[in-house]
This record gives sequence, C-alpha cells and structure tokens, in this order.
Amino acid sequence: MSEQTQSDATPRTRTEHDSMGEVEVPFDALYAAQTARAVENFPISGQPVPASIIHALALLKSAAARVNSELGVIDTDRARAISAAADEVAAGDHDDHFPIDIYQTGSGTSTNMNVNEVIATLANRATGGQPQVHPNDHVNAGQSSNDTFPSAIRVAAGRLVHDELTPALEHLQRALAAKAEEFADVVKAGRTHLMDAVPVTLGQEFAGYARQIELGGHRVRTAAESHVAELPLGGTAAGTGLNAHPQFAPKVIEEVSARSGVAFVEAADHFEAQSAQDALVELSGALRVVAVSLTKICNDLRWMGSGPRAGLQEVQLPDLQPGSSIMPGKVNPVLPEATLMACARVIGNDVTVTIGGASGTFELNVMLPVMGAALVESITLLANSSRVLADRCISGITANVEHNRELAESSSAIVTPLNRYIGYEAAAAVAKQSLANRQTIREVVIERGHVERGDLTEEQLDAALDVLAMTRPQQA
Amino acid sequence: MSEQTQSDATPRTRTEHDSMGEVEVPFDALYAAQTARAVENFPISGQPVPASIIHALALLKSAAARVNSELGVIDTDRARAISAAADEVAAGDHDDHFPIDIYQTGSGTSTNMNVNEVIATLANRATGGQPQVHPNDHVNAGQSSNDTFPSAIRVAAGRLVHDELTPALEHLQRALAAKAEEFADVVKAGRTHLMDAVPVTLGQEFAGYARQIELGGHRVRTAAESHVAELPLGGTAAGTGLNAHPQFAPKVIEEVSARSGVAFVEAADHFEAQSAQDALVELSGALRVVAVSLTKICNDLRWMGSGPRAGLQEVQLPDLQPGSSIMPGKVNPVLPEATLMACARVIGNDVTVTIGGASGTFELNVMLPVMGAALVESITLLANSSRVLADRCISGITANVEHNRELAESSSAIVTPLNRYIGYEAAAAVAKQSLANRQTIREVVIERGHVERGDLTEEQLDAALDVLAMTRPQQA
Amino acid sequence: MSEQTQSDATPRTRTEHDSMGEVEVPFDALYAAQTARAVENFPISGQPVPASIIHALALLKSAAARVNSELGVIDTDRARAISAAADEVAAGDHDDHFPIDIYQTGSGTSTNMNVNEVIATLANRATGGQPQVHPNDHVNAGQSSNDTFPSAIRVAAGRLVHDELTPALEHLQRALAAKAEEFADVVKAGRTHLMDAVPVTLGQEFAGYARQIELGGHRVRTAAESHVAELPLGGTAAGTGLNAHPQFAPKVIEEVSARSGVAFVEAADHFEAQSAQDALVELSGALRVVAVSLTKICNDLRWMGSGPRAGLQEVQLPDLQPGSSIMPGKVNPVLPEATLMACARVIGNDVTVTIGGASGTFELNVMLPVMGAALVESITLLANSSRVLADRCISGITANVEHNRELAESSSAIVTPLNRYIGYEAAAAVAKQSLANRQTIREVVIERGHVERGDLTEEQLDAALDVLAMTRPQQA
Amino acid sequence: MSEQTQSDATPRTRTEHDSMGEVEVPFDALYAAQTARAVENFPISGQPVPASIIHALALLKSAAARVNSELGVIDTDRARAISAAADEVAAGDHDDHFPIDIYQTGSGTSTNMNVNEVIATLANRATGGQPQVHPNDHVNAGQSSNDTFPSAIRVAAGRLVHDELTPALEHLQRALAAKAEEFADVVKAGRTHLMDAVPVTLGQEFAGYARQIELGGHRVRTAAESHVAELPLGGTAAGTGLNAHPQFAPKVIEEVSARSGVAFVEAADHFEAQSAQDALVELSGALRVVAVSLTKICNDLRWMGSGPRAGLQEVQLPDLQPGSSIMPGKVNPVLPEATLMACARVIGNDVTVTIGGASGTFELNVMLPVMGAALVESITLLANSSRVLADRCISGITANVEHNRELAESSSAIVTPLNRYIGYEAAAAVAKQSLANRQTIREVVIERGHVERGDLTEEQLDAALDVLAMTRPQQA
Repeated sequence: MSEQTQSDATPRTRTEHDSMGEVEVPFDALYAAQTARAVENFPISGQPVPASIIHALALLKSAAARVNSELGVIDTDRARAISAAADEVAAGDHDDHFPIDIYQTGSGTSTNMNVNEVIATLANRATGGQPQVHPNDHVNAGQSSNDTFPSAIRVAAGRLVHDELTPALEHLQRALAAKAEEFADVVKAGRTHLMDAVPVTLGQEFAGYARQIELGGHRVRTAAESHVAELPLGGTAAGTGLNAHPQFAPKVIEEVSARSGVAFVEAADHFEAQSAQDALVELSGALRVVAVSLTKICNDLRWMGSGPRAGLQEVQLPDLQPGSSIMPGKVNPVLPEATLMACARVIGNDVTVTIGGASGTFELNVMLPVMGAALVESITLLANSSRVLADRCISGITANVEHNRELAESSSAIVTPLNRYIGYEAAAAVAKQSLANRQTIREVVIERGHVERGDLTEEQLDAALDVLAMTRPQQA
Repeated sequence: MSEQTQSDATPRTRTEHDSMGEVEVPFDALYAAQTARAVENFPISGQPVPASIIHALALLKSAAARVNSELGVIDTDRARAISAAADEVAAGDHDDHFPIDIYQTGSGTSTNMNVNEVIATLANRATGGQPQVHPNDHVNAGQSSNDTFPSAIRVAAGRLVHDELTPALEHLQRALAAKAEEFADVVKAGRTHLMDAVPVTLGQEFAGYARQIELGGHRVRTAAESHVAELPLGGTAAGTGLNAHPQFAPKVIEEVSARSGVAFVEAADHFEAQSAQDALVELSGALRVVAVSLTKICNDLRWMGSGPRAGLQEVQLPDLQPGSSIMPGKVNPVLPEATLMACARVIGNDVTVTIGGASGTFELNVMLPVMGAALVESITLLANSSRVLADRCISGITANVEHNRELAESSSAIVTPLNRYIGYEAAAAVAKQSLANRQTIREVVIERGHVERGDLTEEQLDAALDVLAMTRPQQA
Repeated sequence: MSEQTQSDATPRTRTEHDSMGEVEVPFDALYAAQTARAVENFPISGQPVPASIIHALALLKSAAARVNSELGVIDTDRARAISAAADEVAAGDHDDHFPIDIYQTGSGTSTNMNVNEVIATLANRATGGQPQVHPNDHVNAGQSSNDTFPSAIRVAAGRLVHDELTPALEHLQRALAAKAEEFADVVKAGRTHLMDAVPVTLGQEFAGYARQIELGGHRVRTAAESHVAELPLGGTAAGTGLNAHPQFAPKVIEEVSARSGVAFVEAADHFEAQSAQDALVELSGALRVVAVSLTKICNDLRWMGSGPRAGLQEVQLPDLQPGSSIMPGKVNPVLPEATLMACARVIGNDVTVTIGGASGTFELNVMLPVMGAALVESITLLANSSRVLADRCISGITANVEHNRELAESSSAIVTPLNRYIGYEAAAAVAKQSLANRQTIREVVIERGHVERGDLTEEQLDAALDVLAMTRPQQA
Repeated sequence: MSEQTQSDATPRTRTEHDSMGEVEVPFDALYAAQTARAVENFPISGQPVPASIIHALALLKSAAARVNSELGVIDTDRARAISAAADEVAAGDHDDHFPIDIYQTGSGTSTNMNVNEVIATLANRATGGQPQVHPNDHVNAGQSSNDTFPSAIRVAAGRLVHDELTPALEHLQRALAAKAEEFADVVKAGRTHLMDAVPVTLGQEFAGYARQIELGGHRVRTAAESHVAELPLGGTAAGTGLNAHPQFAPKVIEEVSARSGVAFVEAADHFEAQSAQDALVELSGALRVVAVSLTKICNDLRWMGSGPRAGLQEVQLPDLQPGSSIMPGKVNPVLPEATLMACARVIGNDVTVTIGGASGTFELNVMLPVMGAALVESITLLANSSRVLADRCISGITANVEHNRELAESSSAIVTPLNRYIGYEAAAAVAKQSLANRQTIREVVIERGHVERGDLTEEQLDAALDVLAMTRPQQA
C-alpha cells in the first residue's frame, strides 16, 4: 500500500493509492491517500479540526473495534491492534498527523478517513501487516462518517463540558460566593439606570453574580447531559443503520461512556440525530447565556474598579501588569477585558452554530466541522476565562469600604424610608435641597425642623437613615 | 385630578398633574400624566408594548391589591376596586389605553405607570373617588417597576408558552407523526450532501421531523418552567426588597400561578433576577432552536415538493392559492416559506435578546421592553406558524409513491448490499456502468454475468435490491 | 366580478372568484379573492406588510400604467384610471385595505396581488367598469411579483433613507457638533479601559460622536444610493424579462425617480438583482453600523450623566419624566435607553436580513417580505430615535464644568508632561504618592523638592499641569 | 536588562525586570518581562494574535523609527537599528516570538509591548547595546498602544483586502464569467419558489453569480479604502495626541502607504477613530455580504449538481475525492460545502465584531484583539475559499446540456407565450393536461386541435415553444 519514491538519500514522499488513483504523501506521515487529497483540496483556514474531536473519534473507534470483534464482524487480532492504535490517538500521541482544515467536506468524512488511516497505519506497524488492517473495512467497520463524526463532536463537547467547563464554572461560582460573604456588610449606593438608587451591599451583588454562574452551570449541563448526550452512532450512512449490527451502537456507546466518565446514549431517532444537529445549537445557546452572564459581571467589575480618582473606585482589582507605557501607575482591568472578548467570540460562534444547524438537508447536515470547531472553542474559552478570572481577578478584589459607605449615604435615594414619618411630599423637598446644596439628608431633615417639630426623634432619624439596614428590610 | 379643558362642545383634552407639573391628556383617555409624558417622549416605532405584557402586569396588580389588603398595606375597599379594574385590563378590555412605545425607558417604568394610571382611573370611577385610589400609593404598593415589569415579561412569556406554543408544537408534532405513519412504506432515495444515498422511507423522514419538534417542546418548556418561572417580584427598586412586606411576593405569585395555570415561584436571588435577565436569554435560545428545526423541516418540504417536472416531486403540498399571475397552474410552497421567514425573525430576535441580556449594569437591566417584545413576538410567531403549517400544509401532503420508488431504485447507492456476494470492486464496476449507461443495477448485474456465473441467484439479487428492506436493516 | 351575498339588511361579505374558485370577501373591502385567500392562509403575526412598501408598490404601478399606455400595452382610459387609483394608494389613502401578514408567500405575491386588486377596484369604480380593469392583465401588466416586490422594497428603503434617516442623522450630527463647540473648553479626565487617563475636553468627545454620525450617514447613503438603487424591475418572472417590453423598466424607473426625488436605475444584471438580495443585506449592514455608533454614544452619555452623587456626574441630561415612583428626584437617561433598545433591535434585524439574504435559491429569494419589513423598521427606528435623542436629550445637556476640571486635575495621569523635567522614574514616584496620600500632583512635586531643587520653576510646573493645554498638544 | 539564571549546562530561563519587578522569561525568547507576564496572565484560547497584525505593527514601528529620527525625537543609530529589526519582524522572520493570546488586555497593549520588546532585543543585538534601545522610550516613541494597535489592525486588514481578497474575488468572478459565456446557450428550467418557472440559461445564472462577486469586491473595497484606511495613529493615549509630534503620524502613514502599496491616511477625527471602531464593523459587514453571496451561489451549485439520479443533475461538479467509504462512485460537492462553512464562520465573526464595536467606552474600545482576529480570519477565509472554489470547482463544471433542455421543455411554464394565440384560459387547460398526462406542451396543443383549427401554425407553435428564445425576450 505504501512505497518509497526515492531510492537514494532520504525520501520526501511516498506514493499512496485510493479508488481515485495515486497520490503523494509525506514520507513519514501516518496518514494515507484520502488525507493527502483533503490537505490539498482545502487550503482554506490553516486551522485543523480541534484535537478534542480527533480524540473523541479515536475513542469511538477503539471501542468499535472491540465491539466488532465481540460481534464477530472483525477478528480479534485486528481488533486488538486497532484498539491499541486508537488509544494512542485518543491520548493525543499523534496530534500532528491530523492536518486537515476545518473547512473541508461538511460531513467531516475527510477527518474520519484521516483517523481511519492513521489508526490503520499504526495497527499495521504493530501487526507487521499480518493481518492487514484496512482503514475502511476494519477501522471504520459498522460506521459511516455520517454517524461517527457527529457522534465525535458530541462526545468531545460532552467531555469538555464535564471535565473543563463545569469545574471551571463551579470554581468561579465559589470565588464569587466567597466574596459575597466577605463583602456582606459593605454597604454601597445601589444603581438603577446607572443613577443613584437605594443602598445595597457589595456582597449582595457578588451573590447575584454567583447565582448567575450557578444557573449557567445548570443550563450548560442540562443541554449537554440530555440531548447532546444522544449519539447518532448506529445510523450509518442515512440514519437507517444499513450495514450496522443492531448491537453495535449501544455496546460502543456503553464503553465510551465508561471510559470517558460521561453518560452517553444512543439517539432515540437516528434521522433526527443525523439530519439535524439541534442539540448542538441548544448547547451553543446555553454557552451563550453563560457569555451573557459573564459580560454583565465583567462590566460591573470594570466599573466598580474604575478610577482611581475619576471613576467609581468601589473596589480594587488586582494589579497584574503595567497598564501603560506613558502613564505611571496605570492599572487596567485586563482579565475582565479578556473575558469580555471571549464572550463576544462565544456569541459570534453561537450565530455560526445556528446557521450551521439550520443548514441540514434531507439525511445529513453538512456543516459539521465548523459547528464542532465553534462549539469546542466556545466551551474552552468559557472554561479558561472563568478559571483565570476567578484566580487572578475575583479572588484578589478588595473593597473600598469607607468610600462605598460615603457614596451610599450621599445618595438622595436614602430619603425613601422617611416617607412614613414626614410624608412623600416633604421627603421630596428634603431630597431636592440635599442635592441642590450638597448637604446630607440628615442635615436637611434637621435644618428643616422635622426633629424639632416632632415628626420623628433624632434616634428614629438615625435608624431610618442606616444604609446597611436598608439593604435588609425583611429582617427589620 | 382630572378636569375638562373646554366648557363648551366636546373637550379634546384634560389637564393632569404629576410631580413635574401639568400635562394635557386626551379627554377620554383612562391614563394620566406620566403616560402622556411618555407618549410624547417616545415617538419612535409606533409599536406599543405587547398586550400580553400589559395583561400580565394587570394580573400581577390584581393579585397585589388583594394581598396588600390581606397584609394590611391598603384597605379593603381600595383593594377590591383595584382588583376589579385590574381584572378588566388583564382581560384585554382596555387595550387601546396603552399607547406607549416599546422604545421607552429601559425599565418599563412608563408602561408600569400606564397600567397603574389606567387601573386607578377605573377604580376611582367605580368608587366615585371615595376612597381615592392613587396609581403609586395604592395600585403600585409594594412594587417597583424594577421588579414588576420583568415579572410581567416572565408571566407573559410563561403563559404564552403554556397556552399557545406548547399546544401548537404538540399539534405540529402529531401532524408530522401521522404522516410518518402514513408514509412508513414509501421508500425513496436517501440524500446525503444532496447526493443520492441509500434508500430511506418518507415516513422515517417525517418521524425525524416529529422528533425534532418534540424535543423543541422539551427545550422551550425546560427554559420556561425553570428559570423564567422565577419572578423578580419582591425585590422592589434594587433587589433588596426595601418597602415590601416579606410575605407580599410569595402570596402574589401564588395567586398569579393559580389564576394563570402556570407555576411561578419567587426568584431564589433577587439580585440575579433583577440585574440580569439571563432566563429570558435562555428562553430565547430555546425558541431559536425550534426555529432552526422548523427551518430544516420547511426546506426539506419545499424541496420534496419541488417540480412538478424539473424538481424532485417526491410529494404534493396542498394547493392554497394561485402561485403566479403569468404561469397557469403554478403552485408555491407558501406556508413553508412563511414559516421560514418567521424563523428568520425569531433568530434575529434572539440576537436582540442576547444584546439586551448582556447590557445590564449594577442593579438593573434597562433593555426590558425590547427583550419582552422580542420574546413575545418569537413565541407568537412560532406558535402560529406551527399551527398553520400543520393544518394547511403538513396534513394535506400526499406522496408520489411510484416516482419515489423509481428514484430509490435508480440510485447506484443500492449496489451496497451486493458487496457480500460480488465484492466491493465488482460492485463499484456495476455502479459505474449503471450510471454511465442509465441501466438499472439489476440489469447490469445480470448483463455482467454475476447470476449466470453463480455469484448469487436471481432470488438473492432481488432480495438484496429490495429498497424497502434496505431501510429496515435491523429487522433483517 | 363581485356580488352581494345577502339581499336584506347590510351584507357582511361578497363573493369573489379566482382561478381556484369562489371565496368570501368582507363586503366593503377594496381587495378581492387572492387577498382574501392570503388573509386566511397567513394568520401568523398580525403585522401587515409596512405601509411604505405598499406605497412604493403603488407608485411603481402608477408609473407602470402610464408607461404601458405609452408603449401601447394597455389603453389610455385604463391607464388613466389605474394611475389615479394607484396614486391614492401611494398617498396612503387606503392603508386599511392591505391586511396581509408579513409572514406570507416569500415572494410577496400576495401583497402584490392585494395592491393589484385594490387598484383595480378603485379604477373600476372610477370607470364604472367601462372599460373593465383587471388586476393582472392591466394593473400588473409587464410585471411579475418577482421583479415588482423587491423593487418596491428598494424604493421604500431608498425613500426612507432619503426622506427620513438622512435628515435625522444630519440633525443629530448638528446637535452633537453644537455641543462640541459649546464644550470645547470643558476639560475632563480622559478614560481608557475605564481608568483615569490624560485629560480631554468634553467638546472633543462630542466632536468624535458627531463624526461617527457623519460617517454613519455616508455609510447608509453609500449603500442606499448605489446597489439598493438598482431596481430588479424588468426581469419579470425569472430575470429574463419574458413578457416585458424592453423600454418598460427604464421608463417606469425614470418616472419613479422623478416622483420620489430619489435616483433609481434598472439593475445591471437582473439575475443578480432578483435571485439575490445582497444590496438589502449591505444596507442593513450600514444601518447596523449606525446602531453600533449610537450604542457607543448613548452608553457614554448615560455614564457621563450618572449620579447625581454616586456616579460620574460630568453632565446633566435633561429631565423628561419622573424616574421612580419610590425615590423622589430620581431622573433617568430615558432617551439614551430608548435609543439603545432601538439599536439592539436594528442589530437583531440585521441578522434576520442576513439569513434572508443567504436563503435565495436559483431564480428567486423567497424571504422578501421579512427582509423588507425588517429593513423598513430599522430605518425608521434609527431615524426616529436619532431625532428625538437630538431634540430631547443632546440639545439640553449641560456640563458640570468645575467638577470635570477637578476630576481631570485629580488624575495622576497628568504627571505625564513632567517626564521631561524630572524624568519618568521620579514622575512615577510623584504619581504614586499623589494617589496614596490623596494629594494633588502639584503639591507632591513641591513637597518632594523638585521646584526648590531647580528641576523646574513654579511657572513651568503650572504650565505643565495645565490640563486644558494637555488636550491641545499640537498647538503648544 | 537580561541575565542568565544558570551558570552550568543550558539555561532554561533568564530573569527580566519591569516596573512591577522581576519575571522569568524563556532563555532564548526575543521578548522580555511584559510579554512574559501577559503569557502567564492569559492562558485562555491558545490562539496567538494573527501574524498579519504583528507584521503590520512592525511595519508601523519601522517607519516610526525613521520618522522619529527625522524629527529629532530619537537618534539615527537607534533608529536604524530599530527599523532593521522591525523589518525582520514585519517580514515574518520571528513569528514564534509572539505567543500572547488573542484574549488579553482589550487595547492590545500586551501585543504592542511584545513587538516593542522583540524589536528592542534584536536592535540591541545589532548595536551591541551601544546605544541601548529601550522598548518604550525608543521603539514605542510617539506612540501609545491606543493609537498603534488599532492602526495595525487597519493596516493588516487593508493589506489583506488589497493583496489577498480583492484578487481572489476577481479570480472567482472571472471563473464564473467564463462559465457564463460557456453556458450562454444552455437552456434550462427556471425555478422560482423552487417550482418550475419559465426557462433561463445556465449562463444567465452564472453571469448573475459573477455580478454578485463583482459587487462584493466593490463593497469590500469601499469599506477598506475609505474608513478603514483612516489610521488612528497620532492620537496617542486618548486621542489628543499628547506627546506626539504633529508631523509624526502623517509622515509614518505616508511611508506605510508607500511600503504596503495601500493608501492609508490619518484619521480625520482621532476621538472617532480611537474610541469607536465603526470602520471595522463596516468592513466586517461588507465581508458578511460576500459570505451571503457565496452562500447563495454554493447552494445553487450543490443543487445543480445533485443526483446523479435522484437529484436535479443539471451540471457535473469536478470529482475531487472519494465521497463515501460505503457507496462506490459517490462524489460530494465538497468545495461548496467547505465554502458554506467558511461563510457561516464569517457571519458569526461579524456578530463578534459588531459586539466588539458596540463596546467602546469614553476614549477607548477595549475589544480590539478579538475584533482584529475575527476580521483577519474572515478576510482570509473568504479569499482562500474563493480561490479554491474557483480553481477546483467552478472551472471544472460541465453542463448536462440535453437533460437541462428536456427539463426546460417539460415545464408547463413554457405555455406562457401561447397566451397571445389561444388565450390564457385555453393555455391553462393545455398546461393542466400536459401535467396530468405527462405529455409535452406541443403534443397537447396539437392534440387539442389548436393547429388544425388555425389558432396558430405549426411553425408559430414551434417558434413560441423555443425555450432558448424565451430566455432572450428583448431580442425578439
């Protein structure tokens, strides 16, 4: 199947054959003819299919070989060699041998064949070609790109959610919750419409962020663990399962679940799972909600930390790197910024996945590689930015306690609890005078004679104007 | 509070007052000063806030009055008058009195005040102003626009999902499932990459569509019944609940749930529920998946019905209206087209909602009216197009049974099951000759002597080439 | 063609016929059978096709009748009656008679027939049916929905850009430029990454906004006046122009241009202009850039006006309406908020238009009505929000001059010009001490002995620390 | 500035200092402390800033050094060393030394410092540190990240449009136009709503595609050559130009234009150009229209080539690689599919750029790296996919001439020209019978006696039914 093209010195390429004829392949490539054709056909982005999808494909093929042997479809020797080779690929030992562009055939057939070819080469090296392992007849047995490749996307996405994103979100949530506790008594001016409102605590804000991230985790897992976990495997070329043993898919999926630690099942309807990729759109939508949450949180953090003189200066974000080559002492909220950019990418990726999902026709969706790449990128961006945001930004935030309290007390909105003593109209007059003359509410209330007149005592006034108490009305 | 501006003939306006001074209001308007200001401030789209949101606000206020009375916050007479008035508004009796543009203050305060004013006017008419009902002090008691308006969006969305979209999707799913059963034996050429593939049945395709819609229903309900169902009510101005009785929100929500038949709960974290609107983004994302599903289905339907001579002509879509003023007999797939346009709108709305959701700052998201309007529109578009698509298109589809079988049998892909008799190489040669000479696979196999030579019997040949059997490999 | 269905009392409907048989039509409707069928077929959104598109269609048909008469295609009497009737429709006199939903047949055929029917009814009333005017044979002569409807979208969009959006953007630009001049000397703290940076003037910021809007006008006009102005008219059913006189399209377009005051031309390639709608996507993209500009500007305005105590309080936005039912004196930036929501809608509409534009197949794009409706909505939203933002917000903005100067002077970034006197290292030490001890830069420089030591004179120090001079370095 | 950390064997890192202290840097890295901090701070995507932006930054710095020397800001020796070093970086000789993630500080400061550090290291190696070249004081002289980095994005985008995308689109346009000519007489069934319509030629369709691509080129160049070509350079930190010589920016830009062959100019308003990035959003919008055009074209190509038996089989797309491991002879439209996926990515990137563009605040937009990366990716994807689509797909397309003519003639829509001989009603009857009995229109006309009866002669019938003539009505 393979031969040297040069007899002297080091050969540069070797010749491989497939059903369309001969093709030159780099001499030491583990792949063969179909991969080489695809490399030549798709010089588009320079970005290969993500390694996580290659690894998932290999994991499926390792399990497939064992199951095919068990079902008598291929012999034990070949199965053993294939599984061993596939395990190496799944472990990331041969990532350089998967050079095909994301922008290739929409079914991912080129990448599926790349994986088949590399595994076959490795297996034949191990067996010495006795017996010969064929990429289609043996590595791909019982499979079609049309069921295997979308299954690999789902396995990759499911694993990344389970192994990377879920713990990263939990980590971020804990970091936010720790700050919520730390800042539980740090009273500050509330802001609605960006305008001064009744007081809140910094801790309440961080608790809200923590809850956003907690719910984000729910959203992502709901999508990943239900519909994404339904694998198309077993549908083969068109969803009918032609040429696949009925026990093939369930057994392979059982092994993949066991080995990955993520529960996958066979798709309830193979036409749905192969011709449509709605589950991927659903997952992307959930990731997009996390991006929306992080956008809100990071913008708040940036504004809280704005200053140090001309901003809100409610908190101090950790100082990570010099912020400017001109202005000494400038520190910028670089991790919220990095996270915001990651979120913008995730939201853009979501549109790509949506367009991909809407583009299926009859028995196949042929936007698979770009959907898979976008999803994997989104999961990775959210996981990594959540973790680094938690560790290098959130955990190091300190509050400007006194400044926050001053702002809270300066807000005319704190007049609100006086309504019951002096009435809404008089309270409004107090607020107006306070703003106009830059006096505190307390000063104005006394100056206008409300205490003297007996509307309320000075003790009642002080109690009513306790900004921290205003943040806990239900405990009053 | 209101007075005539003209003593003779029909007065055109009356003068109303608020804290900023006097303003003219149309004489017979049920609303008052703040609504009039907002009408003047926001002449932007000409589109009022959707009636479903107005009705939900009124429903909340009806319950709020009763609960406020029960908690001793307002007296029974006022409460009774407010509830009765609010019930009329909730029933849609006064829809013309809510003219404020969607593009208004981002908290929906103008619309909240509009509802407060109309209810107060109606209540005062009923009580004859004894006691006087005030829009803020009584109708809005215990509430802020900041907790009430986003609650109303969620109530409106939850009800529309429950009352309109869910039954519509179930209806569409049943229509598709009925066709799946009807077409269970209609064998046709499968298509992957749009190219001829192994046979499938038309029924299998419709079953896949039905499953897509079934899953779409799950997705929408999951979002609507979990996070969207968490109402911000009780957080008042900034999420702290200042000025609200601790029992207010749970009691109001209990009544709203009972009256609407949809289970709502109080938000677990009021800062999350008020400063962020992630739940709305999540729901929009689920709606968007349904739009993606419908896009796939409608495109397939259009192509199936393409022709009648130069297309695929696999099915006949019902003839609903003349398709062309020039070409006699032209019939177009108008309902799939209408649905596809609705889906494009839903996907665009989803981006609007995403941007809105990412725009919250500190204690409030001020993109509420446009998020609410977009969500309500998306739910309505999907519900109505699903229903009409089911009734006027899907249910009337008939299959071109013979033509479909001919195409299935003409596809060279049906050579696949012969591999085991004559081998992959010889099968490939058969396929090529079949395509080149426009012969059937059967003819070629016989002509090339495979039967004569004993590779397989004519019975085996016929069994292998049974295209319907190919669609049910697991039963073989 | 029409008859009463009830002999006594007021008839409710009349019976109309078309090629598919009889259909009931509301008795006083100006439309006939095909419109009635479409009303029944598309109960989806309740939103009719925008009036501006109806008016543009009627304008085309008025011109078409005259040209058809001139070319001998229809007789003068019919032409005169059609033109007169079409002019009434174009003037908006019969807007209630166009009830068909946006979500209809994707070619807009139903709306085209609606216009044909209403014009025919009006014309027949005028002629007394002598001669009889037929909606297809006469009103639609030389036309197909496939060239007429997309032409009408372009005429409507071109006119709205010319008549509404361009003047509104110019108006907004002037309002911003006036403030740029007014605030030319209002020095304030610059902010990059939201953090204190070197000083700028409020006028420079407003000049930047004015330039954004000026460029936005360029962008929109570039799209509208080049590719959108190419009308598909003359291509008829499939772009080949079958059944249309070669002089028909150029003559009609000449008259439409003259009457609308907007220069339209015949499409250079009718297949491009009919099967694709790229020009609409281009225009939508330009509108989207304006939305992006406005988003940036409105966010800045909101933050500038934040406060009055706990925000940046750099400017005062006009007070338009009470901001809160609880907090007296609260004023919110309601017009920036309304505009931001309009922008979010425009960006969402842009995605809808993009999906529509990408959905053409062979000779026709069948997403026309939703693309047209979204475009018209986006243009209108931007025009109206720009105008109201200019008039009710921008023009009334006042600057908090002293506060701004204080913030500018308090920023440690103003140490930058001292580099040349005391070196970067010493300047950094000054900045740090200034921040740590809340001293001014001037105080620290003197305290640290730089003046005493002769690094610079007190005059040089004052000149270097002149924050206004820092904003005009090229004039130094 | 740099020292070895290990005295024996090969050292792994060296210690570098910056204003925040010491940091370890890989021993042979050309970069220094700030780059190392950024690598550590941003382990997010693993994707570095695109090389084209690094090269553009270096080109700017090469010119800046020469201009700074000319203006007396830095000395000639340093300038010469910096320019030489920068030229190497601009030529791509050191691409491995720019490892900082796209998701970093939003101003691109980290990447700007990376470029400054690498150039300084190379320059110091050349000068032997006599004189010492400092990354900030010398390489970055007269610049700030805030004007330099967005300038580099624009230079990179402008060059890629000029050097890659424009020629690729012209190439694709020529390939389409060549096919338009080749297929000028290939008559085929038109399709509107996917349903049979009047005949067109395959050449007309390809001419329409060519025109779409031609207009796409206009759109992209309009954006790139007008607003994108306005460089923010000269604004420095906040747009005021503090610390920059007034002649610096125009002179640098003049040299960059000369060396790149692309005409750039200084921004008319530095606040607009720095605080907003509308020009990038505009360019992205234009790229998105090209993606929309390609989507339409590729979908048509896929459908034209569908079959070979059960599809439309109007054309034969070149056979590039085996399409299936199961079905012999299966060939898929892999390049249209790859291009469609690239388009989905470009449309998603456009949303990312839109969100980025809308996120500027006060004096800076801090979404620059992700906007730059998305734009560069979109330009590259469109350029490469256009070229490969032209060369490996379009150029090799052949038409199934006879089959196309048969379909055109079988379409009942060809009855249209008979209206003038036998009237619309009789023509409709002919069409119906033709469809019902699967007869040709010609057969039915004769069978129904129209020739016999003298409605038209057989010659007139044949002339009227000449499908090719129907595609050129204006020549009749």
